[in-house]
Amino acid sequence: MLTFIGLGLYDERSISIAGRDALQAADYVAAEFYTSYLVDATVSDLETAHDIDIDVRDREGVEQHPEDILRKAQSEDVAFLTAGDTMISTTHTDLRLRAIDRGIDTRVIHGVTAQTAASGLTGLQNYRFGKSVTLPFPYAHGAEGVPTSVTDSIAANRERGLHTVVYLDIKANRDEYLRASDAAEMLATDLEDMLAIAVARAGSPDPTVRADRLSALAEKDFGDPLHLLVLPGELHHLEEEALAALADAPADMLNAVDSQ
Amino acid sequence: MLTFIGLGLYDERSISIAGRDALQAADYVAAEFYTSYLVDATVSDLETAHDIDIDVRDREGVEQHPEDILRKAQSEDVAFLTAGDTMISTTHTDLRLRAIDRGIDTRVIHGVTAQTAASGLTGLQNYRFGKSVTLPFPYAHGAEGVPTSVTDSIAANRERGLHTVVYLDIKANRDEYLRASDAAEMLATDLEDMLAIAVARAGSPDPTVRADRLSALAEKDFGDPLHLLVLPGELHHLEEEALAALADAPADMLNAVDSQ
Repeated sequence: MLTFIGLGLYDERSISIAGRDALQAADYVAAEFYTSYLVDATVSDLETAHDIDIDVRDREGVEQHPEDILRKAQSEDVAFLTAGDTMISTTHTDLRLRAIDRGIDTRVIHGVTAQTAASGLTGLQNYRFGKSVTLPFPYAHGAEGVPTSVTDSIAANRERGLHTVVYLDIKANRDEYLRASDAAEMLATDLEDMLAIAVARAGSPDPTVRADRLSALAEKDFGDPLHLLVLPGELHHLEEEALAALADAPADMLNAVDSQ
Repeated sequence: MLTFIGLGLYDERSISIAGRDALQAADYVAAEFYTSYLVDATVSDLETAHDIDIDVRDREGVEQHPEDILRKAQSEDVAFLTAGDTMISTTHTDLRLRAIDRGIDTRVIHGVTAQTAASGLTGLQNYRFGKSVTLPFPYAHGAEGVPTSVTDSIAANRERGLHTVVYLDIKANRDEYLRASDAAEMLATDLEDMLAIAVARAGSPDPTVRADRLSALAEKDFGDPLHLLVLPGELHHLEEEALAALADAPADMLNAVDSQ
């Protein structure tokens, strides 16, 4: 049996009780933290809190060499952990399909995702979000500025009045995390200087949620990662109230959006 | 303090450990189950598992008469529970804003949502979903068939190659839950007879995930609620493999989508 368990967003207590129980019952526990990571728990914190040993795998150890994981899962209970929800990432769908191909039972225990938190923390309604995008570091993208695929998706969402979650690049192996301020500066260059919401440390007890024009967000320091941005489309009245109360949105920016 | 806690999707163990700890520390616990509910836990199950008392509120008791909740939250630790994630629903954003307006500290402890599960269980990539829609019962919609707003959103997503989550109507007070088979029949009338994926009991240990043309899904019984449908847009190769392995998608339907 191979059970994919999402750890949620923040620390060793962000996992569901069902996930924790499955984790503790497993004979072998593998994890990866290169697609995302827990903001406030080390591997050692997880091991201590749940009284388990964790075998942390790098990208190569998951994507190129998952043989020993699959072999163990043929006869034992194996748990595979990631931050957020495990099945959001293509990599792990591939691992699941390889397991099924060998006749291994698989199961998914979901975790809270940044998408859920982005909607909940901003007060923007989940059914009014369009396609999400990821903004890469310029060096990862191979060019300055914002990829056309990102600006095109944002524009297509806005044409339909929809909000966009902008995930920010994570290079965990280099300990680099694109900051909301840097992302806002990049976007302000390629888009109009529109209203945006910076969300820092979603899922933590004390997340930062701040709405302002992109050029103003570019000047701010939102503290420790992880960060993301939300670019709102048309705002309903309650959404405007939420951005004012939860994210300190400037009144003139809300009026500007409202009158579009 | 007013803490909004998402219970997740399935039973009393779907809540995060952080959520459970906050729940148990609360002086007063209110909950509503009219926007959604836990598939396999009664209120009594929740009370027993977490050793708490829960005051279940109906819609009027949350939206029209939240006075006593707010009054308690001014001096005590109050927890407000829903299935899924609490802040996904407009109602509860309103309650949060009322609390903030009175100077009450608020906090959100997120829960797993059906959106996360829909992506994870089907193997469709989360950043390739467009706007979600909700399909109402015809009697709730006030007309036969599928509202134009729903078919328009599905069409707009498909034009961009994006997948659509179709949430199915819940009338918890009447114990009515729109079934995936009935929804597929409604959609097959108003859309072409396209590939769709039925997901039943997302978040449970044994969810059903089945891909087929709408007219074929309309003939099936997916068992106990809750159900939802996913209408895929363009499918990448790995997504096709996932639908074949995880959802038993007919090979000819995958080729049909692929060649569009």
